[in-house]
Amino acid sequence: MVTLRDDERLDFLFTDESMQIIQSPTVFSYSIDAVLLANFASIPLKRGKIIDLCTGNGVIPLLISREVDNAVSITGVEIQERLYDMAVRSIEYNNKAGQITMIHGDIIDMPNKFGNRKFDLVTVNPPYFQTSHPNHLNKNDYLTIARHEVMATLDDVIQVASKLVKSGGKVAMVHRPGRLTDILTCMREYKLEPKRMRFVYPKQGKEANILLIEAIRDGKPDLKLLPPLYVFNHDGTYTEELNNGGY
Amino acid sequence: MVTLRDDERLDFLFTDESMQIIQSPTVFSYSIDAVLLANFASIPLKRGKIIDLCTGNGVIPLLISREVDNAVSITGVEIQERLYDMAVRSIEYNNKAGQITMIHGDIIDMPNKFGNRKFDLVTVNPPYFQTSHPNHLNKNDYLTIARHEVMATLDDVIQVASKLVKSGGKVAMVHRPGRLTDILTCMREYKLEPKRMRFVYPKQGKEANILLIEAIRDGKPDLKLLPPLYVFNHDGTYTEELNNGGY
Repeated sequence: MVTLRDDERLDFLFTDESMQIIQSPTVFSYSIDAVLLANFASIPLKRGKIIDLCTGNGVIPLLISREVDNAVSITGVEIQERLYDMAVRSIEYNNKAGQITMIHGDIIDMPNKFGNRKFDLVTVNPPYFQTSHPNHLNKNDYLTIARHEVMATLDDVIQVASKLVKSGGKVAMVHRPGRLTDILTCMREYKLEPKRMRFVYPKQGKEANILLIEAIRDGKPDLKLLPPLYVFNHDGTYTEELNNGGY
Repeated sequence: MVTLRDDERLDFLFTDESMQIIQSPTVFSYSIDAVLLANFASIPLKRGKIIDLCTGNGVIPLLISREVDNAVSITGVEIQERLYDMAVRSIEYNNKAGQITMIHGDIIDMPNKFGNRKFDLVTVNPPYFQTSHPNHLNKNDYLTIARHEVMATLDDVIQVASKLVKSGGKVAMVHRPGRLTDILTCMREYKLEPKRMRFVYPKQGKEANILLIEAIRDGKPDLKLLPPLYVFNHDGTYTEELNNGGY
């Protein structure tokens, strides 16, 4: 049983037909970026604490919950009440309320709420777009808030992640390659040392359009560049590795 | 006519049989990294000034000289006299002394020698390896100096490049992916904004082992990730794009 509001619908969770998630074309739909991040992140499988910032409709917690034992707790944080509400209903629908906890709040407040250095893994698919005139954007628009740095800047996201994660714990993020220099300089400023990175290309011969990056709190400098990932074959079908969620 | 010393030999310049370069297994031989950088860099083809730092046996100036008109001047700087001498003889042997000027000196001194903001393009294939105990290395060893940050650190190289290049001019570097965070943070510190980047993978499915990066002095942030480059096919032969020098 699930209650769907307005133009909401129940979609399968990518290629997995065992889970469904509430989406809406006007409010929020997850992107391939979230699927790739959930597969890229170094997830503690047996026990540990995971927090997903800017969680939207809870897609990343739901994806991760399929992989981990019951002793792993997953928290999702979303500032938009409408999206938080979608996430809560999706989690209940998939019987994951015992493992996934949703919080309606601002990520900035989470270090005070939880304390510093509490999580083994922080995941985040933050807003991608900088805006020089945030006041010109419609802050009541769901998609604007999800996509633009209106409520949280890249610096906010990285600073909060750095506080929440344990020393030696991991922060995994998906973003645009164009922001790589901002991301690396900011991570290092907050003692998150970039360790693994993967670029996603729409197809062979094109420029990368998605960046996956994982840092370790207080880690030693040594960055590994994983093999590139292609989304589409030349015939327009998904590549095999994408159908496998990026692996 | 060319005079070869000790164990020196004349090698073809990669797949180009129109030029030859003096090499030595004990002193210096160019690597594929130099070939890739020469092809990756945005070279001013009609006129302009190029300087290649840490030029070794002059491989990058020689490679670039094949592409450009006579009005383009190319300067190479090498601190090791023995390598400088190899470069001078190779340049004469290939009749490029009118276009390529070799300088025996420390890159640190070049901004004073030339003045700031004089070059359209700075290329550099610097020493890759950091060493926590530089005094333990044999500083008289040619290969040690070419490969380790004994005579110049990454910070030195980027600072010097930033001084030599014009505003709007380009700095192209080849390095190891493991140093990417160091490179990006340092470039930004010295007002070199990373704009184009390409990772080179030994073969499909492996981690990248070479990084090509180009920055623009005083440029706007916006980094493009070019398609990955593979060196070897699965059967161990060079890929077609490598045989074409990376394009």
